[in-house]
Amino acid sequence: MCGIIGYCGPRPAAEVLLDGLKRLEYRGYDSAGICVDGEDGGLHTYKRTGKIADLRAIVPDDAAGGWGIGHTRWATHGEVNDINAHPHSDDTGKVTLVHNGIIENYIPLKERLIADGHRFVSDTDSEVIAHLIADLYQGDLEKAVREAIFLLKGTYGIAVVHADEPGKVVGARNGSPLVVGVGEGEMFLASDVTPMLAYTKQVIYLNDGEMVSITRDGHVTSDSSERRITKEVHEIGWELEQIEKHGFPFFMEKEIHEQPASVERAISGRINLDGATGHLGGLNMSARDLLGVDNVGIVAAGTSYYAGMVGAYLLESVARIKSSAELSSEVRYKNPIVTPGSLYFAVSQSGETIDTLYALRELQRKGGKVLGVCNVVGSTIARESDGGVYIHSGPEIAVASTKAFTSQISVFYIFTLLMARMRHMSWEAGIDFAKALKHIPSQIETILGQTEPIRRLAKKYARYQNFLFLGRGINYPVAMEGALKLKEISYIHAEGYSAAEIKHGPIALINEQTPSLFLVSDDSLREKVITSMKEVKARRGRVIAVAVEGDEEVADIADDYLYIPHTEELMYPFLMVVPLQLFAYYCALELGRNVDQPRNLAKSVTVE
Amino acid sequence: MCGIIGYCGPRPAAEVLLDGLKRLEYRGYDSAGICVDGEDGGLHTYKRTGKIADLRAIVPDDAAGGWGIGHTRWATHGEVNDINAHPHSDDTGKVTLVHNGIIENYIPLKERLIADGHRFVSDTDSEVIAHLIADLYQGDLEKAVREAIFLLKGTYGIAVVHADEPGKVVGARNGSPLVVGVGEGEMFLASDVTPMLAYTKQVIYLNDGEMVSITRDGHVTSDSSERRITKEVHEIGWELEQIEKHGFPFFMEKEIHEQPASVERAISGRINLDGATGHLGGLNMSARDLLGVDNVGIVAAGTSYYAGMVGAYLLESVARIKSSAELSSEVRYKNPIVTPGSLYFAVSQSGETIDTLYALRELQRKGGKVLGVCNVVGSTIARESDGGVYIHSGPEIAVASTKAFTSQISVFYIFTLLMARMRHMSWEAGIDFAKALKHIPSQIETILGQTEPIRRLAKKYARYQNFLFLGRGINYPVAMEGALKLKEISYIHAEGYSAAEIKHGPIALINEQTPSLFLVSDDSLREKVITSMKEVKARRGRVIAVAVEGDEEVADIADDYLYIPHTEELMYPFLMVVPLQLFAYYCALELGRNVDQPRNLAKSVTVE
Repeated sequence: MCGIIGYCGPRPAAEVLLDGLKRLEYRGYDSAGICVDGEDGGLHTYKRTGKIADLRAIVPDDAAGGWGIGHTRWATHGEVNDINAHPHSDDTGKVTLVHNGIIENYIPLKERLIADGHRFVSDTDSEVIAHLIADLYQGDLEKAVREAIFLLKGTYGIAVVHADEPGKVVGARNGSPLVVGVGEGEMFLASDVTPMLAYTKQVIYLNDGEMVSITRDGHVTSDSSERRITKEVHEIGWELEQIEKHGFPFFMEKEIHEQPASVERAISGRINLDGATGHLGGLNMSARDLLGVDNVGIVAAGTSYYAGMVGAYLLESVARIKSSAELSSEVRYKNPIVTPGSLYFAVSQSGETIDTLYALRELQRKGGKVLGVCNVVGSTIARESDGGVYIHSGPEIAVASTKAFTSQISVFYIFTLLMARMRHMSWEAGIDFAKALKHIPSQIETILGQTEPIRRLAKKYARYQNFLFLGRGINYPVAMEGALKLKEISYIHAEGYSAAEIKHGPIALINEQTPSLFLVSDDSLREKVITSMKEVKARRGRVIAVAVEGDEEVADIADDYLYIPHTEELMYPFLMVVPLQLFAYYCALELGRNVDQPRNLAKSVTVE
Repeated sequence: MCGIIGYCGPRPAAEVLLDGLKRLEYRGYDSAGICVDGEDGGLHTYKRTGKIADLRAIVPDDAAGGWGIGHTRWATHGEVNDINAHPHSDDTGKVTLVHNGIIENYIPLKERLIADGHRFVSDTDSEVIAHLIADLYQGDLEKAVREAIFLLKGTYGIAVVHADEPGKVVGARNGSPLVVGVGEGEMFLASDVTPMLAYTKQVIYLNDGEMVSITRDGHVTSDSSERRITKEVHEIGWELEQIEKHGFPFFMEKEIHEQPASVERAISGRINLDGATGHLGGLNMSARDLLGVDNVGIVAAGTSYYAGMVGAYLLESVARIKSSAELSSEVRYKNPIVTPGSLYFAVSQSGETIDTLYALRELQRKGGKVLGVCNVVGSTIARESDGGVYIHSGPEIAVASTKAFTSQISVFYIFTLLMARMRHMSWEAGIDFAKALKHIPSQIETILGQTEPIRRLAKKYARYQNFLFLGRGINYPVAMEGALKLKEISYIHAEGYSAAEIKHGPIALINEQTPSLFLVSDDSLREKVITSMKEVKARRGRVIAVAVEGDEEVADIADDYLYIPHTEELMYPFLMVVPLQLFAYYCALELGRNVDQPRNLAKSVTVE
């Protein structure tokens, strides 16, 4: 979602900001802009809809400056156009800012400001903040920002500059992430670490209610009580080269292909083969605590939610603990019931998904213990949770999540092994479970070595406009995830269902124009899935099957099929999802979509 | 789903069977057939794909007979064609039968029969049963049927005739419903009561494992141990006129318009205003039992599942009991965890939905107490549950369920009131809840009095091929149900989502060609839904809103809107769903669909 960058230092600021915005492109945006100081000592804003390359074209070569702010916008209030793009300024043009988040009370604020003589040019909620700061400014930008945010209701991460205070960028956060980058003789402020990775690995994570003021020489942080605070400086674990494409045309393809390694990292050191159990370091729970858990709730959104559904299925069927996955956006507002034996997981790749963060806080307020399952180290959810597990996927740049999904479920497999072994699972069964899991990376490797049939399948089907994706049991959420991938990057309307459920309604959609993709593992539900396939075939529906190597019956019934290697019944989500990721990817390529930055979508969803 | 009828009596059998099949049309089918005895004393079969009118055209006028069987087929194994239509016979043509259900071991049986010299003509699993009975026949049809079903694995309701035993129809059931109609000097056998309602109201419900043999003079029933048993004769509560259209072009429109009365019936006598609580007669649970419930699980499929989601939301938020709705097809196979404090509901309009019946049995095996929420009196789920509530909707004939949904949720509102009052709800709050509920029928009446704007909306939007239906909180399942209705009868691909969830993926589908329909009630989530509407508008998506009378802000943002009356926050599902039912109905009319019998669909889903 919206990306923010601010810079103070000796380099040409316009270049640093534009390069930074390029790194932030992955978050999804529809317009962008920067504000830098010019030769004349004044502030100059350049902004427009479209890509960073379009923005770069309108920034004059001599627009260097030594400080400034930049922004990629994912529209919430007001349509996508040049005027609504950030930065925004007040009437005088002295206060300029970029904003990520949603100001809920912007209408009454705007009305009051207009009554006071302010003139607005955009439809955004963000512009209100610039006018408000200008209204309150009396020679001290930090003070004006502090007074302004006191009047705001909603969420924000902001970076503000003032023409009368050159060389300074002020940031404040509530609900939207901000990270300070500490360089040598230069300082950065950004919505995540990617745009500063080329310059520094020393970062400070701001918390809600905190403010920062940076100059090229240093930074001052303060909390909501205006107290100056000293924040810990963290070292980023990612390398710059991890956010490069390395010869792949798109990050998504690169990240799909990283999965043998990323799953390996997610399980590495977490399986105790001698004890036939799992080991997770950061849970902050004793064995007694874990034994006392009688209910697990997993809150998440989008792909992480489907990973959570796999996790809930596993925990319930293997560890025999009542478990459910719920949409974080709905959990937050439903006044959830938290019992003493409940344990929660908040799953978010970025660790900044605001729906999930808010659900986490609501559950904690009710006394719930919430563990985070995040990828980004130091992210808000990782910091605010009561314990947690990093999935160690490395940076996921493509908007459509792939390797994070397989790593998230990896964590749930390990946690299930741990919990099941503390309960009903025998040592032998634990060994079998662990061995099957350890074998997964090489099996994903096998699938990735045979992409040509998937590419051919995509070529054949990419122009169909509607799909049903159907699975059962533990593969039902995988069908949902596969459909989501196709929606996200190819814009084909694919819907996931339990295969058993189609006869209760969705089968009405079936005809020659609406293919169905079935996930058929070789478990106890195979026969039932085959019956559903036959019902679809009987109504002239085209059937694509993802089936287990050697399943000739399914191959005979289906119009087209892909084989995956055999594994244990509950391990299939790993092997089923990879062909679906590739199918979506190749369909999108076939249709000429911008795979890494699909329309309308944002990577890290930091607004409600 | 497949319908069965059998007749023995003085009337012209062909007429009785064809009229009966006409009554069974509502269950959904793609071919039909009958078998009657002719002047020559032999059995004659007439069958073909298409409607009953097409079948009637090929039955000779003199094909009267005094006994016979008939069938409407909803294809499972083998495509839709004349040969696969029922009835099916053995090689000699002496044994003829109709079958509802799925025979899972038909392939090995067929192979053995072929090896023994039998020749098969169809691709169906059903034909195997005819050959098997012929193979075992030694002058006693009942004996042969009994021996045959002993070899079958799967589900069946069958009606069988033998040329050498004129005037007799033998029926057997396992998993697929069969009802015996007791007339005066005539007897009926059918998959439900509708085809016999014109002749008799005296019926006997067969249980799994039971067999019946009817002649014009009477019937003999026996159980799986070959013991003759005497079954209770029940009186059907429905009137013939309830299954007529009464001037409406389609049953669906009639049933939508019946909702003020059907909701009234569902709550009538079940609200104790003095005590400000609910009263449900058939629960078979003491107040102490009800007080001990700490977990509610609702199992259902299709529309009933969405009704269950509303119920779970209510019970959790109002009665503060942990509750969840789950797909019955998935519950059955996931080895559910049943705790002593758990209470389950099995929700099914027909009471015959096999996925839900099987889930009920599995939960009972694990010691779970399961209450039925059914419409059809005497249905299998109603009989096998540990207690339950009839929704009293009257017969629902249209395949797409409407009045059953509002009546099912009515039951959950009453049950929630009852459970909440036993826990945290005050007398005053109970009165408010009860009064708001009692007001609902007249508010539905108000909506039904203003259908013209909905018709205009449908005219404008019927040709769009993809929709998103979006709601939050208790209206989220209503959005799912509205999307399902549109899918079912107009074949438009509409998908339901939580409005908050679109930014986690589905918003990629949004452009001018994919409208979004938002449910906006005037509760605490209204602002959040408006934000989602703006996000869609910012991406040039068309927005339709169903909003509360007088909400001008929503009317301004949306391209089109419908107003509904104001009610209490949690009562909106009743008022939100009715415009969605009508929207789907008018869209289907606009597209010239067969509203009551949409393609591929079946009413009472009696196969897995």
